[in-house]
Order: sequence, then structure tokens, then C-alpha cells
Amino acid sequence: MENIEQIRHSLAHLLAMVVKEKYPEAKLGLGPAIENGFYYDFDLGEKSLTDTDLDELEKKMRSLISQNLDFATETITADKACEIFAAEPYKLELIDELEKNSESISIYRSGDFVDLCAGPHVANSSDIPRDSFRLDRLAGAYWRGNENNKMLTRVYGLAFTSKPELNDFLDKRAEAEKRDHRKLGKELDLFCFSDLVGPGLPLFTPKGTIIKEVLQKEVESICRHYGFEKVSAPSLAKQELFEISGHAKKFGEELFHVTSEKKHDLVLKPVQCPHHTQIYASKSRSYKDLPIRYMESDKQYRAEKTGEVSGLSRVYAITVEDGHSFCRVDQVKEEIKNMVSIIRDFYSRLGLWDEHWVSLSVRDYEHPEKYIGEPKDWDTCEQILQEVSNEMGLEAKRCEGEAALYGPKLDFMFKDATGREIQIPTVQIDFATPKRFNLEFTNEQGEKVPPVMVHRAILGSYERFLVLLIEHYAGAFPLWLSPVQAKILPISEKQMVYAKEILAELKARNIRVELDENNETLGKKIRNAKMEKIPYLLVVGDKEMESKTVTVEARGANKGESVSLAVFCAKIEEGLKSRK
Amino acid sequence: MENIEQIRHSLAHLLAMVVKEKYPEAKLGLGPAIENGFYYDFDLGEKSLTDTDLDELEKKMRSLISQNLDFATETITADKACEIFAAEPYKLELIDELEKNSESISIYRSGDFVDLCAGPHVANSSDIPRDSFRLDRLAGAYWRGNENNKMLTRVYGLAFTSKPELNDFLDKRAEAEKRDHRKLGKELDLFCFSDLVGPGLPLFTPKGTIIKEVLQKEVESICRHYGFEKVSAPSLAKQELFEISGHAKKFGEELFHVTSEKKHDLVLKPVQCPHHTQIYASKSRSYKDLPIRYMESDKQYRAEKTGEVSGLSRVYAITVEDGHSFCRVDQVKEEIKNMVSIIRDFYSRLGLWDEHWVSLSVRDYEHPEKYIGEPKDWDTCEQILQEVSNEMGLEAKRCEGEAALYGPKLDFMFKDATGREIQIPTVQIDFATPKRFNLEFTNEQGEKVPPVMVHRAILGSYERFLVLLIEHYAGAFPLWLSPVQAKILPISEKQMVYAKEILAELKARNIRVELDENNETLGKKIRNAKMEKIPYLLVVGDKEMESKTVTVEARGANKGESVSLAVFCAKIEEGLKSRK
Repeated sequence: MENIEQIRHSLAHLLAMVVKEKYPEAKLGLGPAIENGFYYDFDLGEKSLTDTDLDELEKKMRSLISQNLDFATETITADKACEIFAAEPYKLELIDELEKNSESISIYRSGDFVDLCAGPHVANSSDIPRDSFRLDRLAGAYWRGNENNKMLTRVYGLAFTSKPELNDFLDKRAEAEKRDHRKLGKELDLFCFSDLVGPGLPLFTPKGTIIKEVLQKEVESICRHYGFEKVSAPSLAKQELFEISGHAKKFGEELFHVTSEKKHDLVLKPVQCPHHTQIYASKSRSYKDLPIRYMESDKQYRAEKTGEVSGLSRVYAITVEDGHSFCRVDQVKEEIKNMVSIIRDFYSRLGLWDEHWVSLSVRDYEHPEKYIGEPKDWDTCEQILQEVSNEMGLEAKRCEGEAALYGPKLDFMFKDATGREIQIPTVQIDFATPKRFNLEFTNEQGEKVPPVMVHRAILGSYERFLVLLIEHYAGAFPLWLSPVQAKILPISEKQMVYAKEILAELKARNIRVELDENNETLGKKIRNAKMEKIPYLLVVGDKEMESKTVTVEARGANKGESVSLAVFCAKIEEGLKSRK
Repeated sequence: MENIEQIRHSLAHLLAMVVKEKYPEAKLGLGPAIENGFYYDFDLGEKSLTDTDLDELEKKMRSLISQNLDFATETITADKACEIFAAEPYKLELIDELEKNSESISIYRSGDFVDLCAGPHVANSSDIPRDSFRLDRLAGAYWRGNENNKMLTRVYGLAFTSKPELNDFLDKRAEAEKRDHRKLGKELDLFCFSDLVGPGLPLFTPKGTIIKEVLQKEVESICRHYGFEKVSAPSLAKQELFEISGHAKKFGEELFHVTSEKKHDLVLKPVQCPHHTQIYASKSRSYKDLPIRYMESDKQYRAEKTGEVSGLSRVYAITVEDGHSFCRVDQVKEEIKNMVSIIRDFYSRLGLWDEHWVSLSVRDYEHPEKYIGEPKDWDTCEQILQEVSNEMGLEAKRCEGEAALYGPKLDFMFKDATGREIQIPTVQIDFATPKRFNLEFTNEQGEKVPPVMVHRAILGSYERFLVLLIEHYAGAFPLWLSPVQAKILPISEKQMVYAKEILAELKARNIRVELDENNETLGKKIRNAKMEKIPYLLVVGDKEMESKTVTVEARGANKGESVSLAVFCAKIEEGLKSRK
């Protein structure tokens, strides 16, 4: 079997051959192998392609494969290349560039077709498996990715070494599309966008807000258990605050500036830490007051490129659950253990802890100039993190060069249901920020010394975490996270009074419950409720009304089970307690 | 007894007399009677006054009073006035202005002193009570309030018709100063400011954050009971959103504009309503879906004048608890009753409901042009509000001209502990906004018609409500609002283990409790805790440790009471339940 790169690249040439055959006036752009396949860009003038064209082109590519075409290369001079590609302006531009950079110029021939190309390719088209590729989709693409250039037509192809591999890819992609948070967010009515508000600015509906709040309550309750206290800082500050912290430089063009006709000149905070240092600095602190642990879930603002905002993944404001501990050097190790425990508790409740690995992200020892702070402090910190890893059985893998600017860190990696790696939680030691802000406390000797700051992220931002959860659960949230935990479906108007009794009883127990009062058939009601992926459906007919029971259909179960309301309540309350 | 205005004004003249006597080179500014007294502005050149000078000047004023000076007026020409005040540049400026406006020019003489003045004054200085005034304080004031003019020295005086009145005023002022939220906020460590963050941008410490969150939980739990659902909207929007709603025009210069180097052009929301309309608009709605009730506690931004921000009363961002109901016309009355019930429940829990009155704020019938919407709709709304008042026994007082731009409203007024009127809660009917945003629902006839929007405020903004609560309670918050509800004070290190057992037990019951681990005398510990105004102090000595009790000192009580921990827990839990 040929190398998959060669197959993909050769398919790109075959694609160009059949396009030139069908549209002789087409001008060729670039046609590389890419992840999962290949593409080729064409300037088709006024013409445009359709999906039907793709089918036809694909068929023609298969017949080319059967023609056992050789792929042959040769290195030529720039003059010769210009002669061959005289009618291809894009190729001429490339040749000019290669010449300027004194790079060698090579071409590949297959049949009558010749392309400017560095290879490699299969030796013969018969080396390409006929049934493991497909032309996938059309897109517009600016020549060389520059929006000042002409928009070309890009044809994407998928290509693998075998048909099962192709099918596996297609299945996974279909599954990912089904799980796409933008699609599910709309179907489940979790968030929305408005043209008047603008892109990049999601509005959370009542259901989306419930999930956000349940998550926040969960993480805050765990953090409170480990001694964190909530604070509440403004979104605005003078730019000076972030100049001292170094964030103004770091975020640069991503900073949002806030002005008014009354000459205000402020910025929206891109991070929380500098504000927290100012709460610490508002009082004099003694060694007995430390550690001081602040947490806050608040919006952080980043001026993302207008064209790049999308769904909840990239927005102008992310609501970040952030936390910092200000402590003495002799407390750092306990603080880190504390934070690792929070991460363990939180991800255990989500059922994600079992498959995790930890990176002990240390500095790049060969390039100390990339970091700030004393080498002595760095050694201390790396040593502390190694000890925490040993003592807590984290088996952290040392990853050189992965440290933050101001200190080493522990990074936690998980796998979601689709196999994707999640990298959110982190614990970072920071000797630098307290010094930049002249933070201090009075030590046992009565001297003023700076505290150490330990940063931690648990779930990161609610927006991106929601993306992750929606796609991980494919919208079928576990009971404790479900915006609606149970829905009552009366078979007809006759059971409405009994249905309302159940509603009141469940509401009184703080179950998030809805009653379907629509005048529909039971079948329709069940179908609607299943679309909403509600964990429990409670069907109520005459039989249930008489026996004071409900027929419970759990999500995913094939049939209902008739139980008393008390039994159902005990079951759901048990489920909530165990976070199932 | 002379009119108090005449007395105050005459005292201002006497003040000018004694100042000119002591500093002949002083130039006179203005010297009016004001609320509670008077002031006079002087240009003292390089000289400055001290509090000792004020005492001396005050003594001299008293001796002038004893000289039985007549106050005599005469009307003169501008030329004559210029001659008299040739050495008083500020008076010349005033004369010039009076002449330009063709106003008559009058002077008042008392002894050798003459002042440009329209009066009125007492006839004779003996009409001024000698013991009911005092020179109060010094301040700088720009001539005519314009910061481009020279800064003059302002001397403030207090003056009343009797000594008891003066003393009463001084007592009340001392009490208000003791209650001042800026002073208490710092003493109780509730919030702070940072020069690096900037003025007008308070940072809430853990204790201040607790009060804010307890309040939020309280109001949200009541609103949830009445069917409100939380939503979460971004802080930013395109300006167009507020142009449609009319807020861009209304807030004008108070809008904060948000830009970036990537050419973003957004505004920070000054109000919540327009964002909520967009969540409503994100789905098609049927008559069966209404009412839809959204609530949200989020920051609203106003570009207040830089020089006017102060404490928590005037800040750049207020966190507003806002809510809206989108309903059918036939539901408006029930929606309003619903909201009035929320206001009643919330203010009852704060103990403020007993002394309230309600304004039925209707339009100014003589100036219909000041309002938007159909007169027919206005009549309907006013009728509905009147019915609600009757049916709920609100005895609302009709206040003409007090309606909002878009509709009539019910406004609720309470009295705080110092007798000040609190006017926060409001319920407003709005036919206009839904039409501006083309909101609609499908009615029973299958037609698309606009919903009615009902706005309600319960506690307004947390920042201003906190000002009110701090000053109302003078920092001694009721148990359920106290950031720290109980503090354990062990007599010595010996009882520390037992004290920690109590700490753990109370924490497990979600009591906000602290342990004083300082190595101080019990007396010092008690004094510190009393400064923090903590509801319960738990003193723990050998006796308590042996008998497994605590000696409870309730705030304000003179002596402790020895009870078992279980009894104390029951007491505090009962107190929390009853919101005492």
C-alpha cells in the first residue's frame, strides 16, 4: 500500500485533470493533500460548480485511476516552467516565487496533465484504491488565503487507504454534526443570537441559564468546601491595571476600549487576576491571614476577529470561573493539593476523572530567556509540583517548554465521549504578579514580604464548557444538569387535575418539571418530549389517576414502569444526590 | 420670631462683616441662605482659614448681634453701585450682570457694612437668636461654580430658630455620618476601591459579596415562586438595539462606547429590556406560551461624570435585578398582581412593608404630547392599575404626570430607619416596546399580534440597595443578611480543639461562622467582634468545654447565656427561617 499522503496528493492531480477536461478555460490554483483527504482550488471565471458536478467529476476520476497512468517527475528551469504554464497565471506567480527564493522547480506528469509540484506521488494511478475516496464539498477560498485576492472555487475530497476507513470517518463526522453544539443549542432552546444584538454575543434562554447556574453552583460549592470565598469585581478598569500585570501587552489588539462623550478612557477586563490583587491590596495582611482564596465567575472580554466568532466556542465575552490563592511560600504545596482535590471532585462528578492524565508543564531549560522570575523560584516550584504529583498519585508527565510565562503548572487532560481531548483545568504557581503589584503581608518577623499567587482553572469558561458538555452528552444531559428533569404527559384533558397535583408535588421538591398542556395525542406528546431529551416522562391516564401512580418512561428505556409518585420521587431524588 | 430665611441670610452678612474686619483685603463673593444655614464665599488671596479662625469669627458675630444693628435697604443705580463696590471685583461682575438684564439693584446696610443684596433680612440684628447658629466648616468653591474660575474660600454656617433645633440637626447628622455607607463599608470590609482600577468601580470583598448574593437568592427565590425564569444576556450590543428601543437617545452622553483596534463598534447596555425582547423574539410564540417571564441580575453601564462618582451610590456599573413579563392583554392584570405580590413578599421580609404607600402614576392629561402610545391603551392600563389597587387594598394615590414615557405605573414608597423615603419598586405597563421590536405571538384566531410587556423592579440595583441597607441597619444587618452570623471566641489556646468542633458543626449546618484564633484577651476579642457587628458571639472557656455548652452573647444584649450547642443551633436556625 502506498503512503496515504501520496494517494491524497495524487487524487488532487486527478481532480485537476478532470476539471480541466470539463472546463478547459479553468485556471489552476493550489492542490495539496490535507488531513482526511485533499483539495484543489480552481478559477472557473463566471462558472460555478454544483453537487451534481462533483458526482460526475468523481466518476471521471475513477475511470482515470483505471487507466493506469504513471506519475513522473522532472526538475526544470524557471524559464521552461514559465513556458509550460504560460496559460496558468497562478502557477506563474508560484514559479516566480520559487525562483526568487532560489528553490528548485519540479513538475509531475500524469497522462497529458502536468502540474507544478514537489510531490511525492504514487508511481501509477492503479496504486490508488478506487472505493476509499470521495469528492466531499465545495467552498470559496481566496487565492493564498488573502482576502484582497480573487475568490477561487475549492473542491474538497476525502481519501483513505480503505473503504471501512472512509465509512468510519463519515460515521464519526455525522455523529459530530448531530452533536454540534450550535445545532443542539437551537433544538434544545439553550441559547440564541439576535441580529440586533450582534454576532459573538449569545443570549442564554431560561434552559441554557439553568445549566450554567447548576454548573456554577456545583463548582462553587466544591470550592467553598476547600476554603474559597466569592468576590465580585467590576468589568472595567483603567488600562494601567493591565499594563502593570502585563496583560495589556499580551492581549494587545484583543483589548476592548471603553470611552464616552464625557472623556472616559477605560478597558474591559480580559482576565480576572489583576482585579483580585486589588482586593487583596485593600487591607494590610498578616501571615496569620493567609492563605486568602478568592473565586469569581465573571465575564472576560476579548475582541475576537469579527469574522471568527462562532456559536459559543468563540464569543466576545466568556464567563470565566476563576480563582486565586494568595499564600506564604510554606503554604504553596497545600494550596496546590487543595486545588487538585477540587479538580478531582468536580471531574469525578461529571464522570470524566477516570480517563485523565496530568502534565507537569515545566520551562524550556535551553531558553530561560522566555520566562520571568528567578531560576531559584522556578526550581522550588517545579520541585513542589513534582511532590504533589507523587503524593497524590497523579503520575504527572514532565512536559518541557509548556510552563506559563511566570511559572510552572499542572495541566489536566480528559477524554470526552467522542474521544476528543479536553484540556481545561490547570494549577499555576506565580511569584511574579504579586511583586508587580507590590502586594505584601507582614511575616512572623514583622517584615513586609510578597505573597505567592496560585492560579487555578476548574471548568474554564461556562460558554466553552457548555460546548463541551452539549457535544459530550449529545444534548442528553445527566439528570442533575438537565434543564427539565421530568415532563408530565396527561393522555387527555380528563387527567389534568391529577397531572397538576403531580406538578405541584414535584415543584415543591425542587424538581425541574413541566406539564404538557397541549391538546395532542399521547404519541405526539411523547415524540416532542423525546426531542427535548428529558430524563423522565410521566404518562398519566385514567389507570394512573385511579391508582395514584405514574407511568415513568426513563430516557433511553423502551417501555414505561408504573410506580407510585412517592417511589418516583425517591428515585429521582436519589439520582440527583448521586449525580447520575 | 423672624422668618428663618431672613435670619440665615442676615447671619451671612454678619459673617462677611467679621471676615472683612479681620482680613480687610478679603474680596467678597456670594453669601446666600441655604438649607439648614448659610454660607459666604471669600477671596482671601494667599491666606487660608482654620477651624480656630471659625471659632473666633463666630464669637465676633455674636457680639455683633448684641450691638442691635439695623438692616436697611435701598435701591440704587448701577453707577452708584459700581462706586460703592469699586474695590470688590466679584460684586462688580454681579452688578454688570444685573444691569445687562435690566434688573433693579439693591443694597443692604448693617452698621458700616454694605452688601449688594436683594434681601430680605431681619430688621435688627437683635432679632437673630444668639445660640442657635454656628460656623460649621470650610470648603473650597469655584466662583460661580465654574472650574475655570478662581477657587474661593467658602465658610458654611448652620442656623435654626432655636437651640434645640440646632442640636437636633447636629445629632441627626452625627447619626447619618455614623451610618454613612462609605464609612461602614470600609469598617465592615464590605467593598473597596483601587486607584489602579479607578473611581466609580467598586470591588466587593468576600463579605460584601455574601450580602449581595443572599439578597439575590432571596429576590430570585420569591420571583421564581411567581413564575419568573432566569435568562442571561451579554453586556454588549450593537448601538442599533438601543436606537430601536429609544434608550440610545434617552441615555445620550451616558452611553459607554466599546471599540477595538479590530474595528468593533459596540455599546455597553444601559438597561436590560431590549436584550430580553430578543430572547422572546428567538422563537415563534403562541397565545398558549404566554405569559413568559424573564428575570436577570446583570450589570448596566452609565457613563456618569468623572467628578460625580461616589461610594456605591453613583458608580459606572450598577448590577440591576430586572424582570419583564411578555403577556396577552387579558393577562396584564394578573401579571401586575403577581408583581405586586413579589414586592409585598420581599419588603415584608425586610420588615419595611408595614409603612408603605403606593403611587398610581398616571399621565399628565394636559400634556398628552409628552407620552407615546394610544390614549385608548393608556385608559385601559390606568383602569387596570386602579382595579389592582382596589382588589389588593393598596389604596394607591393617583399622581398625575408621574407616568413613564410609555405607560402608567405603580410606584411603592417605604421609610427607612432614619425616616428617609425609599422609592425603588415599580410595576410598569408597556405597549410600545413590543411594537418597536416587532414582537408577536399567534393568537387564538391564528393572527400575529404584539404582546404587552410589563416591567418590574423589586430592589433595583444591588449597589444602591446595599447603600440603603447599610444605612438603614447602621451596619448591624439582620441574621440572614449578616456576612458572619456567629463568631467563636475561645478564652485561651486550651479550648481550641473544642472551638474547632463547634466551628465544624456550625459550618456543616451552613451557618456563616468564624473562629477567632488570635492570641488576645477575651475582652479584646469581644471588642473586635462587636466592631464587626456580628449577631452572635460564642464564648468558650473551660466551663463551656466541660459542660459541652457555649455562652452566647447576642448582639445588643448585655450579658451572655449559657446553652448547649444544640439549643444554640435550633435558635439560629429558627432565626434564619423567620428572617429575624
